Amino acid sequence: MASGQRIAVVGATGAVGQTTLKLLKQRNFPVRDLRAFASARSTGKTVKFGDDDITVETLDANSFKGIDIALFSAGSEQSRQFAPFAVKAGAVVVDKSSAFRMNPEVPLIVPEINAAAARSHRGILSCPNCTTIVTVMPLKPIHDAGRLRRVIATSFQAVSGAGVNGVAALREETLAWARGEKIEPRHFQHQIAFNVIPHIDKFGEGGYTGEEMKLVGEMRKILALPDLAVSPTTVRVPVFTAHSIAVNVETETKVTAAAARAAFERFQGLRVVDDPAHNQYPMPIIAEGQDHCLVGRIREDLGVANALNFWVAGDQLRKGAALNGIQIAELLL
Amino acid sequence: MASGQRIAVVGATGAVGQTTLKLLKQRNFPVRDLRAFASARSTGKTVKFGDDDITVETLDANSFKGIDIALFSAGSEQSRQFAPFAVKAGAVVVDKSSAFRMNPEVPLIVPEINAAAARSHRGILSCPNCTTIVTVMPLKPIHDAGRLRRVIATSFQAVSGAGVNGVAALREETLAWARGEKIEPRHFQHQIAFNVIPHIDKFGEGGYTGEEMKLVGEMRKILALPDLAVSPTTVRVPVFTAHSIAVNVETETKVTAAAARAAFERFQGLRVVDDPAHNQYPMPIIAEGQDHCLVGRIREDLGVANALNFWVAGDQLRKGAALNGIQIAELLL
Repeated sequence: MASGQRIAVVGATGAVGQTTLKLLKQRNFPVRDLRAFASARSTGKTVKFGDDDITVETLDANSFKGIDIALFSAGSEQSRQFAPFAVKAGAVVVDKSSAFRMNPEVPLIVPEINAAAARSHRGILSCPNCTTIVTVMPLKPIHDAGRLRRVIATSFQAVSGAGVNGVAALREETLAWARGEKIEPRHFQHQIAFNVIPHIDKFGEGGYTGEEMKLVGEMRKILALPDLAVSPTTVRVPVFTAHSIAVNVETETKVTAAAARAAFERFQGLRVVDDPAHNQYPMPIIAEGQDHCLVGRIREDLGVANALNFWVAGDQLRKGAALNGIQIAELLL
Repeated sequence: MASGQRIAVVGATGAVGQTTLKLLKQRNFPVRDLRAFASARSTGKTVKFGDDDITVETLDANSFKGIDIALFSAGSEQSRQFAPFAVKAGAVVVDKSSAFRMNPEVPLIVPEINAAAARSHRGILSCPNCTTIVTVMPLKPIHDAGRLRRVIATSFQAVSGAGVNGVAALREETLAWARGEKIEPRHFQHQIAFNVIPHIDKFGEGGYTGEEMKLVGEMRKILALPDLAVSPTTVRVPVFTAHSIAVNVETETKVTAAAARAAFERFQGLRVVDDPAHNQYPMPIIAEGQDHCLVGRIREDLGVANALNFWVAGDQLRKGAALNGIQIAELLL
């Protein structure tokens, strides 16, 4: 029998699905057989997997026969509907939607932080929201250094976090402006070109958005700190790829800027970019296409003793989604 | 003798100078005579003041003879060099540069907050940095309601904050992208189109930028709270006009979201835009051209008892600069 895994990529035509196909090759993931699934309107299209053209199939209850690992990035409704069929067929599901993230029986995994929690899975492993992943990566080494007490996070989120339609909106709105036309909002609630929108996902209780509450709940679960004080503000900005987050943390014991820097440098998956004298700090345009999350602007708080500011940027299609999903799948090998 | 003030606008060809000329007319400021000054390379150009074309003059030590009020927005070097001549000639200087802001003998004024402090001037009144003004406006009513203990501010700053060259950079870089060309950074340290840059002004001690330290020092001075804990992160975003700031505040006594909202609504110069159900919240595209600072996303902190989050946006050329300067001049009438 051939070695390697029989993989299903669900949502293969989407931005995250496309990146997943690319990264499976780049990382030499042991793929024996690859099947691509998407919604009915993509059926019959092909997607590239290395040099191969894979014909996209429509998902149904029987799609997962013989599949070892199913990587879902088709949205939470699709995950809720079809992941149980995959599990029943004997596949392990790595789900990148929000469907199961807060389900106490489903591990929510950032491999650099809580790989051990993956062992308890019952067929489904969940991948956090993109903003959560980029924000929580530098929080773990700070927690290990000084125990986190409070996190205040303000995000600058790229349009690709809203999928291919988000990217198209920024592109089309900007091109309209370049042609001297009036900008009509395309996908977001308002114009995103030359604007910032402090609204991602639906508004809920207390005035917080779904995106903000994901950040709170998911970070607490990943860090196993159910009472961590988190103050989130999530904002869409006219950037194509890579999210940036301004973070202020308070710790139980003092973590100096030097200690934080050293902790970041030691931490797998982070890269310190913090050389103000040479104008080097994390930015979306340098985070794009990188597997690492970039952390910089590391500063001790000016007014509070045990607090730090820093700035992190990460490619939300890679570490924020596809890469983290594949890293979870690698834990299963 | 004709009534009204003899006004000098120094830096008349710049973005703030242009807005100053427009607002002097719009607000029916009692102008008897208006003279426009700029650097040597603008000499002989004209600027519009209502229907009049005013010929731009080069500044020298004798420029201020007969001037009542000199509105400076030509940069701190020009202010340092020429404001003393204006004072000597009997004019009152309203300076929009950073030259005198932290000088203890110079009042630093946001009229809605500390108009009374203007009375002690000795010829120069200083106007705060644009980001400071937009951020501090909603802080005053919160301080009055519950006494401020700590402020964490993360800014999303428009390119017009960097003057006409900043605006040109975003425009030209974006047009290059639209033509399918490689984007070359024009004015900022890096590409600003489709990017965010966590670096405004020079880096200083502790890793904070000049812009961040201005926010700290100026807010403390305006609010007369020399020990206020302020944690600043200032970021340039690809927006033409209007700055936005995500603010988290801790207070001595609890200020509920409802109480904050009521305090904002009562405060001159603020407008509450906070109707999530109808996707209404402050954004640069709606703040642009408005005299008010817009405040919304008012939420009680999820993890700390006496803390609030909110989001404020303000036209940095108006309330952030020209308007605030004229309001200071109005205090002198």
